[in-house]
Formats: sequence, structure tokens, C-alpha cells
Amino acid sequence: MRTKLIVVYSGGLDSTILLGSAARIQEVKAISFNYGQRHKRELESASAIVQVLGVEHRIVDLSNLRPLIDSSSQTNPAIPVPHGHYADENMKVTVVPNRNAIMLSIACAWAINLKYDAVAYAAHSGDHTIYPDCREEFITPFAEAMAKADWHSVCLVRPLLRWTKAQIVRMGAKLGLESIMSMSYSCYEGGLLHCGQCGTCQERRAAFRDAGVRDLTTYDPAGIAALPIDQLRS
Amino acid sequence: MRTKLIVVYSGGLDSTILLGSAARIQEVKAISFNYGQRHKRELESASAIVQVLGVEHRIVDLSNLRPLIDSSSQTNPAIPVPHGHYADENMKVTVVPNRNAIMLSIACAWAINLKYDAVAYAAHSGDHTIYPDCREEFITPFAEAMAKADWHSVCLVRPLLRWTKAQIVRMGAKLGLESIMSMSYSCYEGGLLHCGQCGTCQERRAAFRDAGVRDLTTYDPAGIAALPIDQLRS
Repeated sequence: MRTKLIVVYSGGLDSTILLGSAARIQEVKAISFNYGQRHKRELESASAIVQVLGVEHRIVDLSNLRPLIDSSSQTNPAIPVPHGHYADENMKVTVVPNRNAIMLSIACAWAINLKYDAVAYAAHSGDHTIYPDCREEFITPFAEAMAKADWHSVCLVRPLLRWTKAQIVRMGAKLGLESIMSMSYSCYEGGLLHCGQCGTCQERRAAFRDAGVRDLTTYDPAGIAALPIDQLRS
Repeated sequence: MRTKLIVVYSGGLDSTILLGSAARIQEVKAISFNYGQRHKRELESASAIVQVLGVEHRIVDLSNLRPLIDSSSQTNPAIPVPHGHYADENMKVTVVPNRNAIMLSIACAWAINLKYDAVAYAAHSGDHTIYPDCREEFITPFAEAMAKADWHSVCLVRPLLRWTKAQIVRMGAKLGLESIMSMSYSCYEGGLLHCGQCGTCQERRAAFRDAGVRDLTTYDPAGIAALPIDQLRS
């Protein structure tokens, strides 16, 4: 019997690889969230990719939470998006208060409702330096709570927790997921093309480079010129 | 310096007493949720009571989660509300999947956003027999996760966890909160008056009786006649 799994799906690179690999072997549904983030560009990528994969997908509108969580550049247009490396101190302004707990709680609610076995999400080893709710200190007790949140127990899994982004990209390429990887979207700026220089764009570019996998992402040429690939930090 | 506290507030009896007592000694804001429950009657009570107390109040609309959590009689009009005692096995159909995790995650997000110290909610000792997410096995790791969910740590407190409902009512009366207690709303049916015979009405009536506190609630006379007070289980 195949595991029944809900994947928390942002439309970004890591969760696209997680969803694409899980959909091969498990019974999968995907859930995305609109939490009032600056742009919907990543949700458009998510919608396109689930169609390619033939996976049922729900987008949960949480945009009315925005006034409660407006201390982040991702939810408050008055706070500028910082440029620089993903792990820099100034990137902490991109942290959306308690975002993971909110999204995971709702994903687990849906899993309980469907009597599904598990919820998976794509936190990876690089995330925790900036994002407190990607740290093991948060995730471990949170997963324990989710297992006890209902008489039907749901297992919260983070299969990529100890992987680097480059390792995730390498796995995606090995599994032949290049096409959906190129359709995924990471940029904080929300333009049609990736800017190539914001924190997540830099991290994306460095991951392909370090993985030795050809990056099929179309970056804005101006951003690429400003930050040549040999100057990206891993 | 007074603790800055957000109270998760349903408009029911327990959280009304919690809010009323906290508002005396702490800097308090209240948060309520519309999660697609059958009726808005308890939210009307909540809105009226916060005005009496002079407490800032937000109602978060989560009604678009309803399709994801429709296995409960509280969120699915096709599932009838069971009658009987609150702790009976058939009351499990009133459990809304992962409701507490969702509400508490959002309340903690707001606390992080405001740099508040704590979030309080009114789970009490009688809740856990039916509601899995009122059990200590859920709450303890969940609170641990919330403390680590952000670089600003929020303390999740459940001051009534070991109290019976009768003890809570007795405390409310001692603090002179009878007026707002009578304005609070418990009934699953959502009528203008409490029906007097659903699980929560029975529990409410028994709590006042066991506490030896005069119950100023206006019950529907037909319901009261059907279930006289001396036949209520505690």
C-alpha cells in the first residue's frame, strides 16, 4: 500500500524536487499558501508544475493574516527586500512570523481530515541560519505535537532536513526532474524572470553550480551581470 | 512591567473568565477565529464582551479552510450535532481537525509580530477526553515548538489546564466577572438562546451547579425542561 502524503508546496526549487520525487512513488496531494507575500509569482509556478505532475493541488488564501504578520519584508510592502547572501544577518527581515507553524498546522489538518498518513515539507540544512522555524529545535517538538493533535496520527516528515541545496539539486537531476526544476521560482522580487541577485536567487544559482547541474533558469541579464557566478557564496 | 499577553478567545465561558481575569493585571489583546463553524453566535458574544472589557480584539477569518476540515459537525452542515454529555464517545464528531494548532500558531504569529511575551488559552481539565488537541501530549511539545519558532521567543500558557470547569466558574464569580460570564456563549446549536441540552450546554449548566454559583445564562425553556439540572452529569 502506498503512503498517502500531503506535500507543503511553495513552487520553489526544493519543494518542487520533493514533490516531483514523492509523486513517483506515493499517493500525493499538494498544498500551497498565499499568506500575503509580496507577489504571487511562485504560486503561478506551483500551479503550472502540479499540472505537469498531475497532482491535486489546493492553494489556501491566508492573505487576511497579513496585518498580524507585517513585520517581514515578505508581507509588508513598506519594508524593502534586502539584497545579499541568503545567510546574512540583514536577511532576518525576510522572516515571516511563525509561517511554518501556520502552514504545517493547516496541512496536517487536511491530512487528518483525509485520514492521510503524512505531511512532508522541504526544509533543508541551509535554511536554519536565518529561519528560526526551520531549526531542529522547532521542528522536532512541532512534529511530536502534530502526531498527537488528533486521534488519527499524522507523521510530519522533513526528508531534506540534513541535505544541502546542492545535494537536493543533484538528486533532482538524477531523477530527471530538470524540466519542473526550471519551472520552479525562487526570487524574492517576484518579477517574471529571476533577478539573479537577491538572497534566494544567489542561493539558487550557487546550488546548481555546486551540484554541477546545468541551470535552466532564465535570469534577468542585468542581475546576472551584477553578480557573476564565480562570486556567489555557497 | 506588565506581561504583554494575547488571549485566544472564543466567546465561550472558560476563555471569557480567562480574558476577564487577565485584563485586570496584564496588557492584553484578544484574538478570535471564524473557522467556518456552523454559527457566528459565539463571535457576537466575544465582540460584545471585549467592548465591556476595553480590550483590543481581532477576528481572523479562516472560513476558506472549511473544505479542508469538513469531517466535523462543527464545520460541515451535513453532519448533525450530537446531543448528550460532552465527554461521550459520539461527541468526537465535533472535533475540528487540528483546530488548536492552527489557532495557536496564528496567535503566536501575532505575538511574535508585536514582540509580546505570551499567548494564553483556556484549555481545561475536562477538555481532553474528547479533544485530542487539548491533551498534555499535544500541548507540551507544541508549546516547546512555539518557544523556538522565532528569534523572539513566545511563551504559550494554559493557566486552566488542571482546573475543572466548576473551579473556573468559581474563580470567575470570586473575581466579580458574573456579568461577562452571563454574556458568554457555549451552545453548539448557535441559537439566540442556549439550547440547554447539547453537550456544551449540559457542561455549562453542571459547572455553575457544581460551583454553587448562580447561573445567569438564559436557556431555552424547552431544553431546560427536557434536561432538569439534577440529571446533568458533571
